[in-house]
Amino acid sequence: MRLKIKEVNISSGGPLIAILNIDDANKLDLHALDRIKIKKGKKSQIVAIDITDDKRTLKTGHIGLFEEVLDKLKIKRNQAVEIFAEPKPRSIEFIRKKLDGESLSKVEIDNIIKDIVDNKLTEVEITYFVSACFTYGLTIYESAYLTEAIAENGKLLKFNKYPILDKHSVGGIPNNRTTMIIVPIIAAAGYYIPKTSTRSITSVSGTADTMDVLAKVAHTKEKIMSIVKKTHGCIVWGGALDMATADDKLIKIEKVLSLDPEGILLASILAKKYAAGTTHLILDIPYGKGSKIEDKKKAKKLKRNFKHLGKLLGMEVKVILTDGRQPIGNGIGPALEARDVLLTLQNRGPVDLKKKSLKMAELLLKSVGVKNAKKKVNGILKSGLAYKKMMEIIKEQNGNSKITPEKIKIGKYKHDVKANKKGTIKEIFNRDLVKIAKAAGAPKDKGAGIYVNAKLRKKVKKNEILYTIYAESKNKLQDAVKISNNSKVINIDGDLTKTFIY
Amino acid sequence: MRLKIKEVNISSGGPLIAILNIDDANKLDLHALDRIKIKKGKKSQIVAIDITDDKRTLKTGHIGLFEEVLDKLKIKRNQAVEIFAEPKPRSIEFIRKKLDGESLSKVEIDNIIKDIVDNKLTEVEITYFVSACFTYGLTIYESAYLTEAIAENGKLLKFNKYPILDKHSVGGIPNNRTTMIIVPIIAAAGYYIPKTSTRSITSVSGTADTMDVLAKVAHTKEKIMSIVKKTHGCIVWGGALDMATADDKLIKIEKVLSLDPEGILLASILAKKYAAGTTHLILDIPYGKGSKIEDKKKAKKLKRNFKHLGKLLGMEVKVILTDGRQPIGNGIGPALEARDVLLTLQNRGPVDLKKKSLKMAELLLKSVGVKNAKKKVNGILKSGLAYKKMMEIIKEQNGNSKITPEKIKIGKYKHDVKANKKGTIKEIFNRDLVKIAKAAGAPKDKGAGIYVNAKLRKKVKKNEILYTIYAESKNKLQDAVKISNNSKVINIDGDLTKTFIY
Repeated sequence: MRLKIKEVNISSGGPLIAILNIDDANKLDLHALDRIKIKKGKKSQIVAIDITDDKRTLKTGHIGLFEEVLDKLKIKRNQAVEIFAEPKPRSIEFIRKKLDGESLSKVEIDNIIKDIVDNKLTEVEITYFVSACFTYGLTIYESAYLTEAIAENGKLLKFNKYPILDKHSVGGIPNNRTTMIIVPIIAAAGYYIPKTSTRSITSVSGTADTMDVLAKVAHTKEKIMSIVKKTHGCIVWGGALDMATADDKLIKIEKVLSLDPEGILLASILAKKYAAGTTHLILDIPYGKGSKIEDKKKAKKLKRNFKHLGKLLGMEVKVILTDGRQPIGNGIGPALEARDVLLTLQNRGPVDLKKKSLKMAELLLKSVGVKNAKKKVNGILKSGLAYKKMMEIIKEQNGNSKITPEKIKIGKYKHDVKANKKGTIKEIFNRDLVKIAKAAGAPKDKGAGIYVNAKLRKKVKKNEILYTIYAESKNKLQDAVKISNNSKVINIDGDLTKTFIY
Repeated sequence: MRLKIKEVNISSGGPLIAILNIDDANKLDLHALDRIKIKKGKKSQIVAIDITDDKRTLKTGHIGLFEEVLDKLKIKRNQAVEIFAEPKPRSIEFIRKKLDGESLSKVEIDNIIKDIVDNKLTEVEITYFVSACFTYGLTIYESAYLTEAIAENGKLLKFNKYPILDKHSVGGIPNNRTTMIIVPIIAAAGYYIPKTSTRSITSVSGTADTMDVLAKVAHTKEKIMSIVKKTHGCIVWGGALDMATADDKLIKIEKVLSLDPEGILLASILAKKYAAGTTHLILDIPYGKGSKIEDKKKAKKLKRNFKHLGKLLGMEVKVILTDGRQPIGNGIGPALEARDVLLTLQNRGPVDLKKKSLKMAELLLKSVGVKNAKKKVNGILKSGLAYKKMMEIIKEQNGNSKITPEKIKIGKYKHDVKANKKGTIKEIFNRDLVKIAKAAGAPKDKGAGIYVNAKLRKKVKKNEILYTIYAESKNKLQDAVKISNNSKVINIDGDLTKTFIY
């Protein structure tokens, strides 16, 4: 069928879609989300179709095409194209198979992921896949295939170096900025640790947001390769890299119902490590009330699955389960966290953050066979080598390597929240801290956030400061204070079970 | 946030969507498929958002709006609107609940269906719902809630009459045009039978396509009410009526993976009856090799569920299980089927079609307490009352009531397919007949199709005609013959198990 092009004046951004008038669709016996091949001269492109019955916007004999398709076919408005019915991609068959409760092979999963990356699947089809992964789960083998497929259908970093180290935290608790301490320690010890991090999605600050206070985090693949070759480490934003395009698209669909299917979570995390050539990984799973994983059994199961999956991928994965019931460090929000990090690298700063980072760095070095790893990581921190290495990395990432903790700008509006009685701190509600810090402007306002004095089991007097809210504007401070006043952020009461770090 | 409107020059047709630039979305901490409220003066509208990072097509500070939204807000391009983040509709919570394997209440299901009808849910969200219904199934109570929700959120036909009769076949086998015989018989017996039918989706011809040969099938609600009041019956296309808008949207999503979740199937069928006020229904479930339901156990289960669901809805549902292994009647394709129907109403025509229709009409009359129902339906057919009633209906539906079977135009190109040996007909492959008839041009070319002489257990001589293919063009006949030559449509061989009609 020959149709005249109507150029749609906006980008679909996602899967390739053409719009047909219902009369033309009926003539070809086509239904919504069927596929057609569009031909113009020797060029052709397969797209999914949507059908409109609104003749004001698309007349019979016309086809609505988005910019992406016009670019691919090198055609312009008012020209005509030929269209032909096309079978649906085979990956749809595999999605149906998964939805029928069957397991998928490596080839089948790779096919689905490749088609997602190539924009060949519509969001409805991807949703069926995510939904099936959520209800039936993935076998550990399927997770391994998924990890490889996500990595191999994205950009890879290739260092030709062994070993390559990395760290990761499954997150869910505020601050916890161990990455920015572990990376300079490991790099100072002489090992490669090319760390890609995320920006905040729903949290107060991602590692990339915090590092952003000190240096540029969006770099090209080539620039990252060169930073790592010079300094052995980096702390960059992974999102600029297209290392896991498929992953981004899956997450978009998952977020709609706040799903977090474990099989996809595992693959999503390890795919980025796999793409960076990681051979040894230390993985932090914080658990406990108020964190992402509330109970220990789940945390242990996740640990087993990560280790097993690592083995299948030829990656040594060390896992530590840590206390997720309270923030690690004092600052929450990009600038406040960056200050904690620099203080820690100067062997000052919050004790819990230092202790946890050193332990993780020690375990990571142990896993590559370093003797006396504990002594070594302590030495690197205390001697100032870690701080020096951090300044090197900051410089390579176009930051100010003359920065000191004291020079970091914190929001100028602040409000203290004090204990209304004396007692022992029994509970800290992470989620409320997150809400308050976000209301104060974090992570967009770098200086906004909370400085938390309170720690579990700490004894406090009446009117002792529990936390201070910082903001860059008076209005936002007021918003944050209002939320703070309406929440029970910190519970001061009798006894509490023992805290732990690992 | 204040944004300038960019009018998108095409209709989305489905859920209400606005497009934001990624920078503006980030400023409001919005993600794809989140909701915003758009305000212009006193008018406001809640829509889902999609996010683009293509600045060529949508600059920062602009919002892309489709016609539907512009109409609702009565605004024009170049004007500005205010937008605010909005929580997602509660129905999304209920969809998540279903996806977690829980059952939904009447209120929850009604909420989901209302939001689907009101275009408040995106296709991704509807897909999660369909997927959850497919994997977990629906309880019979959920199916009842779904039936009521689909009907009550669409247009209702209200006759203020008792009883109201109806018939339905779950389909899956070619022709089987019992509706067009049962409706005039029941109407001639003095009962209301306002039958709405579908057009072909994947089949050769739907009842609406076949009726279309004799009369107009797309009528307004008011016209249908008037036809039924005059003649007691009608055979119209339900699609023109918005009786089950939600159902159409669910079917669109189901078709993508060819899903047919039983719970939705039940609701989808009974919702249209419920909306027409049906009190007594005769339901035909053809089963056996080559039909939609291949095994008897499944057919029996479906029967139980239909009866149970009917009871919950206050509807008397009689079910007959029939032989689905071969076509009912001889003609396949709109005109050939219409001819079968008129011949049958003249007490000529295919015996199997007559026998099945009379049995169904008899059971339906019995269910409303008519004595000697068998004698009565036979009398109505033989006396010509049924034929006369059909002509009345055709006239009211703007058709030619002087039509006779002989005047119906059949495609002028034809090809006979003959037996290559003598023997008994053991198998007829319905799906191949469908493929051939569609290739010949059905249902768009009304005169295209197949006239089938072959019946199961029939003894044939070598070179006896098994079936004749009809087409309106030479090319299409050739296409159909090619497919016919490459398929084993009819299996002539030894013995066969007994055929049955009910």
